Amino acid sequence: MVPFDQARLERLMAEQGVDVVLASTRHNVRYLTGGHYFHFFARTQRQGGGQYLALAAVPRNMTDSFYVGTRGDGDEAMWVGERLPPGADAAAAAAGALRDRGLGSATIAVEMPFLPAATYLTLQRELPSARLVDATRLLGELRAVKRPDELARLGRVHRVTAEAIRAAMVDGGPGRTTRELAAAVERGVAGRGAVFLYCLANVSPSMVREPGEQRWIPGSALHLDAGCEIGDYASDICRMGGPAESEARAMYEACVRAQDGLRTRLGAGMTCGEVQRLGEALMRDTPWGGASRFIAHGLGMVSHEPPDVEPGSARVLEPGMVLSLETEFRRESVGHVKFEDSVAITATGCEGLGDAAREWVTSG
Amino acid sequence: MVPFDQARLERLMAEQGVDVVLASTRHNVRYLTGGHYFHFFARTQRQGGGQYLALAAVPRNMTDSFYVGTRGDGDEAMWVGERLPPGADAAAAAAGALRDRGLGSATIAVEMPFLPAATYLTLQRELPSARLVDATRLLGELRAVKRPDELARLGRVHRVTAEAIRAAMVDGGPGRTTRELAAAVERGVAGRGAVFLYCLANVSPSMVREPGEQRWIPGSALHLDAGCEIGDYASDICRMGGPAESEARAMYEACVRAQDGLRTRLGAGMTCGEVQRLGEALMRDTPWGGASRFIAHGLGMVSHEPPDVEPGSARVLEPGMVLSLETEFRRESVGHVKFEDSVAITATGCEGLGDAAREWVTSG
Repeated sequence: MVPFDQARLERLMAEQGVDVVLASTRHNVRYLTGGHYFHFFARTQRQGGGQYLALAAVPRNMTDSFYVGTRGDGDEAMWVGERLPPGADAAAAAAGALRDRGLGSATIAVEMPFLPAATYLTLQRELPSARLVDATRLLGELRAVKRPDELARLGRVHRVTAEAIRAAMVDGGPGRTTRELAAAVERGVAGRGAVFLYCLANVSPSMVREPGEQRWIPGSALHLDAGCEIGDYASDICRMGGPAESEARAMYEACVRAQDGLRTRLGAGMTCGEVQRLGEALMRDTPWGGASRFIAHGLGMVSHEPPDVEPGSARVLEPGMVLSLETEFRRESVGHVKFEDSVAITATGCEGLGDAAREWVTSG
Repeated sequence: MVPFDQARLERLMAEQGVDVVLASTRHNVRYLTGGHYFHFFARTQRQGGGQYLALAAVPRNMTDSFYVGTRGDGDEAMWVGERLPPGADAAAAAAGALRDRGLGSATIAVEMPFLPAATYLTLQRELPSARLVDATRLLGELRAVKRPDELARLGRVHRVTAEAIRAAMVDGGPGRTTRELAAAVERGVAGRGAVFLYCLANVSPSMVREPGEQRWIPGSALHLDAGCEIGDYASDICRMGGPAESEARAMYEACVRAQDGLRTRLGAGMTCGEVQRLGEALMRDTPWGGASRFIAHGLGMVSHEPPDVEPGSARVLEPGMVLSLETEFRRESVGHVKFEDSVAITATGCEGLGDAAREWVTSG
């Protein structure tokens, strides 16, 4: 069974004049094959004088679809029309399979910002009449509407991230450096079955977010802004802690209220421009409005994937789209206050993804 | 201070007719800059419609060297002659900087199996007279001899891997699935400050090594073959456990003895061909010689990097080179017995890298 929205892909390919999508990134190979990626190279692709390469080819005629990995790759079943035997050169094998299918002169969408130059040159040499165009936007649009199983996974990865951040704050507590706190988030994420990607850490009133030797001193506020992934589905969350009575806490809770206010209005049919204008208005309508910032972006296998949220955008939200909502204040006397959470758009509203551990962590 | 062996690089560039090395992978950017990589994108580069790109350019004239990242990158000091301001397009900025240095028509070595096609096309467009060649082998040869700080890091990452494997066997014990055991290695690696890469897991007498639903049943032997990394320095280790009295244990200990025998002979000046022939002879000279296999490969920032170890190779080992030694038996009645460790070549012999937890883990 085709694991993605076939009609959506066909529409996008027709709109963009694309005959074949040839994906090469781990996330898009997984997306198009229904989750497959050779386990041995899932965390790093480099080995020997090159890197592991897997290619998933989806022409408009789905029965002509195929997958090819490199030597050592497994042979479990997948939906594609053919699984080519893994060999030394996946790119040459893919070019041959495209020629066999009468697609030697086709418009082939490849992932230009990711496809290795060596692979690009092989495709160009083996398919001299083909037109190679960029697939990145097309695949981003294909992924923009998530299936229920994708939303469940995004919920899980957000929950894990929120719990790991809380545990790092509660167990670590003031006294630790931001480097130690970020490392605690990393261990917490791994212990909860996800893959750590990054952790920004900020101690008020500094504006520095790179983890380092700065300590979370008692009386100061801390924000941890972290992302991790499960099977290439990414989280993006920010939480805070610090003294029970503080302006930072009041500002953090104003961020949470602004997000909750926005959530009561979000839903399918709203435009991205409306989301941006409403988010900005809710943040401006706080005692610290002049120091506020509101950013919303799509999130799934890639952070900042479609839909793009910009003030003038007439793009309409669809059920299954995911938005990460960043609400923050940057004020010299207090520092960088930030709360970030993600929501899935539904037909009638929206649902928080893994709404966990949103409360201010009181400590010292 | 130039963090790598400048004379070695100059020799390699002269031999290969290369005017500039332009590195783009995380590991080679780190190698050439002395450890730098923008922390936010260190674990994943994808974001928005593309990926984070950093480029380190080293011409034969080192004072013309430069580094350029993309927006958001830091500004800490590094040895290069110039750090270009991070912008939206690192490739275009690098092309401009190369032209400014009179290198617009130079032979530029790029990492062809890794460089994004979009970056390649930008370089081609902006530097139409330049000759773009592959840097992979050159950079592999540059890295082949390790500095003491690199060996210390490789020792640490091997120790962490060995300890995580042992803990997974001891704490997990028989009854667990190979998927659970591999996950335990992953958590153990993260808890010890390294980044997990892979874990192959095999329960005798099966030959399957992909972690899955197979259980480590009491009375059977288990091997865990795992790799992780610290700052891009990778480990590659295999350890085993199972019943105290078993043929698998006897075979495993024969592997350890073969490696120890090999170690007494290894040293600078020996050829790679001699290593291969001696390793094979030591394994053949065991009660299971017909089922034996011996593989040795270079290891550092990349697994299977130079030196290449092949029977006919006259290549001479140098102090600071690292070899991963794989000794194994594959026999239908017993399964896949394997022991793997890495050594650093010294002027007078060799030293084990993080020789930890080499003993058979007795359990059930």
